[in-house]
Amino acid sequence: MPMLVPGGSLLERAQDLLPKLYESTIYPREAVQVIADETAFQGWRMQPQSAVEDVLDRTYNSNESFILDFGDHHVGYVSFSVRAAGSPQDAPLRLKLVFGEMPCEMGEEFDSYNGWLSRSWLQDEVIIIDVLPQRIELPRRYTFRYMKVIVLSTSQKYKVQFADIQARAVTSGNLAEVKPLPAGLPADIAEMDRIGIRTLQNCMHTVFEDGPKRDRRLWLGDLRLQALANYYTFNNHDLVKRCLYLFAGLRADQGQISACIFEQPEPHADDTFLFDYSLFFASTLYDYYNATKDKATAELLWPAAKDQIRFALERVDDRGIVRDDPQWWCFVDWHPELNKQAPAQAVLIYCLKRARLLAQELSELELSSMLSMEIDRLTQAALEYLWDENLGYFISGEDRNLSWASQIWMVLAEVPDKEDRAELLDRLFIDPPTVAPMTPYMVHHLIEALFEAGKKEKALDEMRKYWGEMIKDGADTFWEVYNPDDKKMSPYGSNLINSYCHAWSCTPTYFIRKYLI
Amino acid sequence: MPMLVPGGSLLERAQDLLPKLYESTIYPREAVQVIADETAFQGWRMQPQSAVEDVLDRTYNSNESFILDFGDHHVGYVSFSVRAAGSPQDAPLRLKLVFGEMPCEMGEEFDSYNGWLSRSWLQDEVIIIDVLPQRIELPRRYTFRYMKVIVLSTSQKYKVQFADIQARAVTSGNLAEVKPLPAGLPADIAEMDRIGIRTLQNCMHTVFEDGPKRDRRLWLGDLRLQALANYYTFNNHDLVKRCLYLFAGLRADQGQISACIFEQPEPHADDTFLFDYSLFFASTLYDYYNATKDKATAELLWPAAKDQIRFALERVDDRGIVRDDPQWWCFVDWHPELNKQAPAQAVLIYCLKRARLLAQELSELELSSMLSMEIDRLTQAALEYLWDENLGYFISGEDRNLSWASQIWMVLAEVPDKEDRAELLDRLFIDPPTVAPMTPYMVHHLIEALFEAGKKEKALDEMRKYWGEMIKDGADTFWEVYNPDDKKMSPYGSNLINSYCHAWSCTPTYFIRKYLI
Repeated sequence: MPMLVPGGSLLERAQDLLPKLYESTIYPREAVQVIADETAFQGWRMQPQSAVEDVLDRTYNSNESFILDFGDHHVGYVSFSVRAAGSPQDAPLRLKLVFGEMPCEMGEEFDSYNGWLSRSWLQDEVIIIDVLPQRIELPRRYTFRYMKVIVLSTSQKYKVQFADIQARAVTSGNLAEVKPLPAGLPADIAEMDRIGIRTLQNCMHTVFEDGPKRDRRLWLGDLRLQALANYYTFNNHDLVKRCLYLFAGLRADQGQISACIFEQPEPHADDTFLFDYSLFFASTLYDYYNATKDKATAELLWPAAKDQIRFALERVDDRGIVRDDPQWWCFVDWHPELNKQAPAQAVLIYCLKRARLLAQELSELELSSMLSMEIDRLTQAALEYLWDENLGYFISGEDRNLSWASQIWMVLAEVPDKEDRAELLDRLFIDPPTVAPMTPYMVHHLIEALFEAGKKEKALDEMRKYWGEMIKDGADTFWEVYNPDDKKMSPYGSNLINSYCHAWSCTPTYFIRKYLI
Repeated sequence: MPMLVPGGSLLERAQDLLPKLYESTIYPREAVQVIADETAFQGWRMQPQSAVEDVLDRTYNSNESFILDFGDHHVGYVSFSVRAAGSPQDAPLRLKLVFGEMPCEMGEEFDSYNGWLSRSWLQDEVIIIDVLPQRIELPRRYTFRYMKVIVLSTSQKYKVQFADIQARAVTSGNLAEVKPLPAGLPADIAEMDRIGIRTLQNCMHTVFEDGPKRDRRLWLGDLRLQALANYYTFNNHDLVKRCLYLFAGLRADQGQISACIFEQPEPHADDTFLFDYSLFFASTLYDYYNATKDKATAELLWPAAKDQIRFALERVDDRGIVRDDPQWWCFVDWHPELNKQAPAQAVLIYCLKRARLLAQELSELELSSMLSMEIDRLTQAALEYLWDENLGYFISGEDRNLSWASQIWMVLAEVPDKEDRAELLDRLFIDPPTVAPMTPYMVHHLIEALFEAGKKEKALDEMRKYWGEMIKDGADTFWEVYNPDDKKMSPYGSNLINSYCHAWSCTPTYFIRKYLI
């Protein structure tokens, strides 16, 4: 039973919107070997080994194994048949199954993992089968292109043979809803669009998940970008609505919206609150209204959006500047050297501007003019206290942190004038601040800023340098983490645990369909 | 579907006799620590640590663990509840569960196991729980006194807490059927009886299993001893009948009875055939008839018994001696130096004598007199070719192998005269052959021979030296393998894989109830 918090009825609406999952049966395409290769991405490449039939024809003894390649990135439920060959099965069968989005997950030992996120995200199972033959339907959902089967122990008397290895892939994104691109676009752009769509689709389940391998849950920062891409592709508006209801229905006691939501065993909010993520509820609601004109939902969720604005404004000091905090209070990007004050100031202005548009749509004119006053105050304060005329850059925090993020967000919030914004963006490439974008999430905002500033060619160029390079490095879906200059990078201490199909990386399709066609 | 071999209707009868399983709920008694201690059996002892409540009150982080002691040996299905404590569960929970009959299974790493039986018999599981709280009902049956829970991975945000750890113990042996011992027996004898009964009970499921941890199946050699003990304790005659039907119904093409039967997914026979085990079908049927006077069953199964006698006699050479074989053709005992020819000769005579009794009961007088002739021929041949007058022992095989087994089985088959048998048994203890009894199974036959020769005190003395010593070494149920002079011995290369509740070791209760009260 959902908790009977004040948002209870919102939660019921959310549960009524549980989406249909589209299912498809997928099969392995071939058997492959993973080869250590320093010249390959992360040091591993896949090499075709044999037809799947050859794997199924063989019998396997203890300590023998094979790797199957399903040909693309999938999310779903795996099943297979296994039987004893030779003498009757005189001992249980012990199998290890390893699922991986990427070659590194097939090549590296999970047990040597030493990152700071839970080892439990790495997708392996040891299963023990007392009776053969057996149809095994693995109950957990896996996110994978590759499946490794290691026969840990049969006995001296029997071997095993596999058959009908397949998966039931699931998604709430219906590809039939996605319009084909117009003809004539460059092939690499079409491919970027296709992979962005695949990324979004594989993150669409009963909520917009951030990553189907990890963390498998609804984060507001990811939802905002997924929803934007969704309006140009799958048009699953009910899924966006469900997610907004969940966030609003699970507000904390004072009305704060959590950074993320867990669906099981019943929907509940995490105890993580982030300044920018909470505020994005307002801009995500604005985007939803803008895409759907669904005024009833906007009205119902508007109080939750106002709550976030109220909390954010409480954080503003007498000068009109968002107070900094040494804790993890605002996300913006993963960079360890990034100070969040200036980006947070800009995110606040950005969201207030969208809230003001919603207030106008909902005829809250008094609130609208109050928001206008706040926007002016915050903008003036940003220019007065955060802009460094000598540097030509916005600085952030007591230590005057100089980052791309501050500039990008100030541009997106339209704090400088239009001409100054264009100039500021140009300057980033001429005299780049050392604290650079670290994630596709931050790169998204750079690209968005470039497009909004009319710098279409530069935006496309940067997309090619980033997502285009990811494709060259083997992306079937776009990744959570990517640094073309440090390809083994992980904010978590191991590239094994990175998510290789990640919501915030899906937006090339949004850019292509919004700005290029 | 069972195979439609000529014995099909026997199989249907077997399945109609599937027994009721008696269930009881058991709980851990206390939390314990396993301590390496060279003075303890196999180098490990258990030390009480805390009340179970203390374990359940605590919350556990990654890499924390506890061991629960259920106070006795049990066979059943384990369940427990687990919930997240602290922040919401933000990653799957990864648990390792280890079940053990003995302290060594709690103290030693299964992954270092290097024996020749399958590692899959060692009872551990890694389970991954995506959603908490959860009631976990482990689907596999475990055989254990101890349960170790290792929290492999939570996350940095949550811990876990356990509750309601319990098991549903199962057996087809109803303790209410077992008569109490008369008062006044020595305490150690009463304890040997109790543990023998517990051993038998924990091997009684839908068949008489050899060991509930390993191999969990119906072996004819074990069945013979279990049935004997059953007639003095549980009196589950239908279970014996079911097992006999299974063996007879699953005869190979030519009518041979396999050494063991698998029940799942449908009853099927192993491809292992052992000279002595096949023959024991006849003596086990005789014992069943003797205990129950169930003539209808004896008649129905008599053709299967005759098949085994026919096969065995085909192995007899012109001299009247069973032909030897370098392969694994006859069990007798595990000793690697044991030649099987003389024991096989004796087992054949032993079984023919019981078959003759059955033939008489079933009024097959012609067969009975044919069997008498064979018994005489085989007995004379044994005395002529296998008896070494100078040694005063039966020898076996081309290399004149000298073993306890040959003497014991010749005594049980009553090949020498009554007085010579008594003398032969005495000689074993004065001038012992080097190939000594290796298993409780062989020790059983020694004790039986001593009792049958009227050497009650000596028999009791040997029981105390063997099963009594096992009790001192911590047996909750009697073991598959035990050598008081080499306590880490295993015929399989690791004491971890030994079965510590094993059918063929249950017979102290049979001896006590048959010969001592």
